[in-house]
Order: sequence, then structure tokens, then C-alpha cells
Amino acid sequence: MMTTNPATRVGQVAGDASPDEPLTISVIGASGHLARTKVFPALFALYCQGQLPRDYAILGFARTAMTDEAFRERIEQNLTCRYTPEHDCAERMKEFLARCIYVQGSYSSRDSFLDLFEVMQRVEDGKRTNRMFYLAIPPSIFTDVAAAIGDAGLVACDPGQPWSRVIIEKPFGKDRRSSDELARSMASVFVEDQTYRIDHYLGKEVIQNLLVLRFANAVFEPIWSREYIESVDICWAEDSGVEGRGGYFEEYGILRDVVQNHLLQILALIAMEPPDRFEAVRVADEKVKVLRSVVPVSIDDVVLGQYGGAGDGSDSRPGYRDDPSVADDSITPTFAAVRLHVANRRWKGVPFHVIAGKGLGSRFTEIRVKFRAAARNMFCEAAGCPESNELIIRVQPDESIRLRVTSKVPGMSMSLKARDLNLYYKDAFEDEIIPDAYESLLLDVMQGDKSLFIRHDELGA
Amino acid sequence: MMTTNPATRVGQVAGDASPDEPLTISVIGASGHLARTKVFPALFALYCQGQLPRDYAILGFARTAMTDEAFRERIEQNLTCRYTPEHDCAERMKEFLARCIYVQGSYSSRDSFLDLFEVMQRVEDGKRTNRMFYLAIPPSIFTDVAAAIGDAGLVACDPGQPWSRVIIEKPFGKDRRSSDELARSMASVFVEDQTYRIDHYLGKEVIQNLLVLRFANAVFEPIWSREYIESVDICWAEDSGVEGRGGYFEEYGILRDVVQNHLLQILALIAMEPPDRFEAVRVADEKVKVLRSVVPVSIDDVVLGQYGGAGDGSDSRPGYRDDPSVADDSITPTFAAVRLHVANRRWKGVPFHVIAGKGLGSRFTEIRVKFRAAARNMFCEAAGCPESNELIIRVQPDESIRLRVTSKVPGMSMSLKARDLNLYYKDAFEDEIIPDAYESLLLDVMQGDKSLFIRHDELGA
Repeated sequence: MMTTNPATRVGQVAGDASPDEPLTISVIGASGHLARTKVFPALFALYCQGQLPRDYAILGFARTAMTDEAFRERIEQNLTCRYTPEHDCAERMKEFLARCIYVQGSYSSRDSFLDLFEVMQRVEDGKRTNRMFYLAIPPSIFTDVAAAIGDAGLVACDPGQPWSRVIIEKPFGKDRRSSDELARSMASVFVEDQTYRIDHYLGKEVIQNLLVLRFANAVFEPIWSREYIESVDICWAEDSGVEGRGGYFEEYGILRDVVQNHLLQILALIAMEPPDRFEAVRVADEKVKVLRSVVPVSIDDVVLGQYGGAGDGSDSRPGYRDDPSVADDSITPTFAAVRLHVANRRWKGVPFHVIAGKGLGSRFTEIRVKFRAAARNMFCEAAGCPESNELIIRVQPDESIRLRVTSKVPGMSMSLKARDLNLYYKDAFEDEIIPDAYESLLLDVMQGDKSLFIRHDELGA
Repeated sequence: MMTTNPATRVGQVAGDASPDEPLTISVIGASGHLARTKVFPALFALYCQGQLPRDYAILGFARTAMTDEAFRERIEQNLTCRYTPEHDCAERMKEFLARCIYVQGSYSSRDSFLDLFEVMQRVEDGKRTNRMFYLAIPPSIFTDVAAAIGDAGLVACDPGQPWSRVIIEKPFGKDRRSSDELARSMASVFVEDQTYRIDHYLGKEVIQNLLVLRFANAVFEPIWSREYIESVDICWAEDSGVEGRGGYFEEYGILRDVVQNHLLQILALIAMEPPDRFEAVRVADEKVKVLRSVVPVSIDDVVLGQYGGAGDGSDSRPGYRDDPSVADDSITPTFAAVRLHVANRRWKGVPFHVIAGKGLGSRFTEIRVKFRAAARNMFCEAAGCPESNELIIRVQPDESIRLRVTSKVPGMSMSLKARDLNLYYKDAFEDEIIPDAYESLLLDVMQGDKSLFIRHDELGA
């Protein structure tokens, strides 16, 4: 049985958390972009922080033929030493890479996974060893891989046995049907408790802070309702377009790629009722509850679009349809603005604007909670008033929390301006390294903490 | 009749506000500390900002025998050019000083004030001229001076006549009896509408901002009550002691000098109900109302003290009784901490701690609104929680507004720390010069705006 009590993490410092039990980590899709740029660097960062068990091995599995040496060279390119003094860095990398082993195979082949199993058993050397599987592969082959892993007997889930856990990345399916199908095939191999659906946005520091802000402070919850809040904007903007990787995006579009995953998760954290305990199950229960209260969207509440080219006829900034990987007549949206309503006592009548776009002028993710105007503002009658209060939470880049208030401008006249009370993470936490989202999430998987992951019924909702 | 509509100031910029009517400003006590360090510099600053009428004269009155030239040299020492480019500065000072005329006399002599009247009539040259009297003198001679001014016929208060206004500085009397007596003698010369009781703390930018913060923002008022606020601290600390000027302080002590004036005024602004309009009369009405709700203080709610010496036997930092101007057996308090209660629906049960002291380790004035702990903080159960939310308003120095929130510390563990959302005036209003409190208050007097002054019944309360 998995325990999902995050209290085990509270107050822990780097180095404390090493579980004693040996662990093998299998990264399926080890030669891909995600594995190289995110998964291996996060594992190395955890190693440097003493968060991996003493006895661990990392097995990379992919189709490309490669020696262990070539595999290690590829991994090394993306490792950085944020947690290690410069002079120790090369040594730590060497140690880490020595634990990385490459297995070549086919994603749908039981035999290939038997090869993986063989290597796994060799490194485990008969010891009771926990197993973590990271499926860093396109969702379209999740089902095949899960089946092959199951057939090859890699998953142990008997009580008293070491644990086996699988991590899959969003998106989790194109629509309800494919999502359900995926869930069924995964469930035939891994039970729900073993499955960690990762949305790396949920690992971001500011997102992790949302529940703390809301529920560990007394000043926000009393004004966190339709009575005081006028609207909530959740914005995700990316300056880059698909840049040759349109194949994947064509299939999913901005709605499934971003809105349905990251942004609805953020909405759930903003809008949910307080759970009765800070435990994964209770948090997920409340997220599901609020997502179920979201009113089905009508066509009037949606604006879709595609980014165009730079407009100067140059290739400097091609439009979406100009991309070689995108069909000339594609109607896949790269921009979406959706107005959602949450039909419950707290939120009835408050629009949640969820806005996402690729190929825009800038790159940021931001939550804006806009408050209603002061009930009766005696100052405005004469002077006209600046905008209403806003709580602005910048998720990336340059994490910050800002409360916009109306203030008197110093000077002889009574003129009012909006100014922000600021908390910049960079300044407020200058002694802390802000960890990459993947580091937090991988550590959570090792510790069986699901509070930042998505449960199957959340997905359905 | 005086209009007290601050709307006349709203949105005005420097230069707009010059009234057309000529003005003579009589500074009684012109050779004293207050006049030299505060009143004349503030008048010069107003001149540089175009806030004095084109046609103005400044008459200094004091006992010291002095020529106009000697008087101007003394004034000049404290003038600064914050509002004027460096290259114009000398020229502006010359212009300003040319309007300053000195009259020597005795504070209790009708004849001396007739001399002043003669000079006044000469500079007014038969024109309809408004008159402002600044009593920069110890309160003990207010009564004499007011009587002499009245006897000499300097005050015009017929309807349709130019206005005459008098400004007196706190403290306004040692106790209820002396305060009432002063009020009566002033009232025989100046009617209430003409009398401006200055508390320069009320002219400070942050204090002026208190009502804007409370009532022009939607986020504070809902949590501004006993339900969410645990206590309010109003602190005033001065590092210097009496430094030879103990004569005055001996008579008043910290309670009358600071607590009864500045700090109770701040308490009133923090605790008052919203006025129905932002007009002087309505604001004063609400201040009186809340001050009347303050429960009489019992001896258990007061701590008094005196500062001692540096403790090293040196003269570097003498104790209060060591000061040559203080009696060796003085029991005048230099420190006071008073717990007050406001017996109304909003504040019942919330202690207001009013704390003031001279000769302390640092110099600052600060308001701390401490909120109650979050109703049920699920994070604290495991981790222990940092302090509760606070709104910290720094009046001086380094004006700022800070909201202390509990935040997750970035990193792998779920650990919580208190961090501040900050608004530093210096940064938020870097293009604005923060005016000295006296500048704002003198401008208000010229414009007949009483919202930042103290009304007689407030004083009584």
C-alpha cells in the first residue's frame, strides 16, 4: 500500500529523504527530447541533493541503437551543477552516468521488455528493489508499452512487495473516449495507486504555493468568492510556434495541449474548496468536485485562432500553416480563449477566462484574480479611480506574487494610482534554488506523494 | 464661509492651486526651532511649487531683536531646493527671502501686535488680503497671543471679507481642563472654522494614505474587524532623548506629547467607520465617534518608564534624569505602552497597543495590523506554522506598506515561511518627491481644507 501523507516531506532538508530501499528507474523513450532535457537532468539534480537512494540504477530504453557510452554522452550534455560546487561537478556527473545503462528495443515488443527485465534483474542482484517507470513517449504508444511491460512481468504489485510505479505525461488522450481507453489499458497493468499522471505545471513552485497562499493565510480566504472577486484570468503565452514539431501539435491543438491540462488544473487549485487535510486523496477529491461544477462550454464562450507569419514575407517568423510539419489547410487552433463558469455557491457568476496561445509576442504564465471595485469608493467620486484590486500570480518566468492596491500618490494633490505590493521569489528566497518542476515531481513519486498529480477521475472531470 | 471640499485638490498639479487672492502669513515665534526648521522651509517649498499666491508676504514675529537681513540669513540656512533645479535655486531663495519681513515684539503685548498690524497693512497696501497666523510658540502662551492678536484687530471674520485663519501646534493642553481653557480663549478671537489644530503626523504621506488604503480598496475592508484582526500595534520610537530641552517635556511627558496626539489620531484613522463622503466634517465626525468608543484606560493597561543612561558611566548617552534640564527626581515618563479597547461592534475584544518612547535604540513610527491565524490551517499540523498575516505600515522613515503572508519555501520540502508583499514608497513613487508633512498642511490651510486637522471635539474625545 502506498502512503500519501505529504507530512513525511514537511521540514525535510536535502539529504534526509534518501529512502534506504534500492531503486531502479526505467526511462522509456530515453533518446527523446523530454528524457534528455528534463528527466535525466532532474534525476541528476536529485542525486546531487542526496535524494536518490544509495543503491539506484537508471535504465534507458529506446529504439535507437546506441552503446552505453554514446547514451551517457547524450545525457551528459544537459546536466548542470546547480546543487554541487563547481570543483565536485565532474566527479558527481561521472558517478551518476556510471549508473546509467542503455537497453535498445521496440516499444510494442514483449521480447524487448524482457531484455529490459533481464538487465533490471542483473542490476537488482536479487535485492528487494523498488521500480519506477517513466513513460517519456508519445501518448499514442502508451497502451502498447503498458501491455508489453505487463506481459514481460516487470510490475510487482503484491502487498509486502517493493513498489512499482509508472509516470505518464500529459496529454492523456485527445478526448473522453481515448482518455478512457488509455486509462483502461494502463489499469490492466498498473492499478490507480501506482499510476502518476504528471503535469509538470503542477510541480512549479508558484503552483505548489497556491494552496499554501489560500489556506495557510487568513487574509485571502474571506475575500475568495463571488462576493469580492469579479473574474479570474489564467493566461498561458508562448512566443515560439511549433517549429517543425507540428506533427504532435496538429493532433492535439492548444485546447488539448494546454487548456485541458495545465490551465484547468490551475483553475481547480484556485477555485476548489479547502480539503479537510493536506493529503493527496483529499486534495484530489476537492479538485474533482470543483471541476465537475464547471458548466459545459457553449460556442459563444470560445475564441479560437492560429498564429500567422511575421507579415514581412520573410522566413524569420513563419505562420502556423507555413510550418513544414503542418498541413496548409490545418484548422488546428494555436490560440484559445475560453470563458468558463463554476456553478457553485462560491463562484456562481464569476467568469474564469482561460487563455492560451503559441507564437505570441511573449512567454509567460500568469493568474490574475480581479477583485470587484470597493463597495462605495468616496475618493473616486471626485478623482476617478484607478483599476480595482488584483492578485497577480506569475507562474513563469520570474515567479512573483503581487497585490495591486490603490494608493495616494505622494504630493500635494489627492490623486490615486494603482501600485503593487510585490513578492518576487528571486528576492524573497534568494538563498533557495528554485527547483525544476520535474525534480519535485520525481521526488514525490519516489515518496508516494500524489498531492501534485492528477487522479483518473480528475482527468475525466 | 470656508468650504471644506477636498475635491478642489483632487487631481491638481503643482502650479494649478495658486489662489489669486493676496495673502499675508504671520509666523509668531519666528526665531524658534519649529519656525526655522519646518515652517519657513515648507513655505519656500510651496513657493517653488507655485502654491503660494503671486502676491504674498511673510511676517516673522518674535522677541529677539533682529534686522530683516539677520532674520533672512537665519531662514536661509534651512531652505533646500528639492523642487527647483540647482541653477535656479539661489534666485528663487532671493525672491522668497525678499518677501520675509521681521517684526520684534512681546507675545503678551497688544502694542507689539499693533506694530505687526502696521507692517501688515503697509504690505497689504489696501488690497483685500487673506491672513494666516502660524503660532509657532509654546502652548503656555497661546492664550496671551490670541488675546493680543484679537485686541490689535488683526482678525477679520465678517462674511464677505478675506479670510483669517490661525494654526496652532499640538500639544493642545496638558489635560482636559487646560485644553478646554485654551479652546475658550482661542474661540474668543478665532471661531472654530478659522482654527487649524495641526498634528504634523497627519500630514505624513503614509497617514494620508490610510483612508485611501482602507476605503479605496476592496480587499481590506472585508477583513478589517474583530473577526479577522487579532490586535493593532501603533509604535513610535525615537532614538534621541530630550537633549537639554527637558523643560517642555517635563511638563507634558510622553503620554501628552505623543500618545494623546499623534498616536490616538492614527488609531482613529485605523479604527473609524467609513465616512459617507471624503469631506473634512464627515471624516472628523467619524474620528470623534470612534475616539468616544475608546474605553477609559485602567492602570493595568499602562506601562510607563524612563530611559536610563548608556550604562557605561560615560556622557555619550545620558539618562533622562541625567539631563541638565530635567529634575533628578523627575517621574515624567519617557516611555509608555498603553492597551486600549474600542467598544463597538467592529472592534470589541481587539487590543490596540499604543507604544511610544524617547531615547530608544531606533527611530521609527509603524502601524502593525495583526490578523488572526487562518481558521484551520491544514499545513501547520505537520510543519508548525510561521507567524500570522500582518499589514505593516511604516510611517517613517522609509515609508512602506507590507503585507506579511505565509508562503511555501521553494525546494523539495514543504516548509513554510513568512514573506512580505512590499510596497516601498521610494520605489513605487520614484518620480514623486514625498513632500514634508508641513507643506501639505500649510497648503490645506490656504485652501481651507480641514480633513487632516483636528477638530475641537476630537480633541475633547
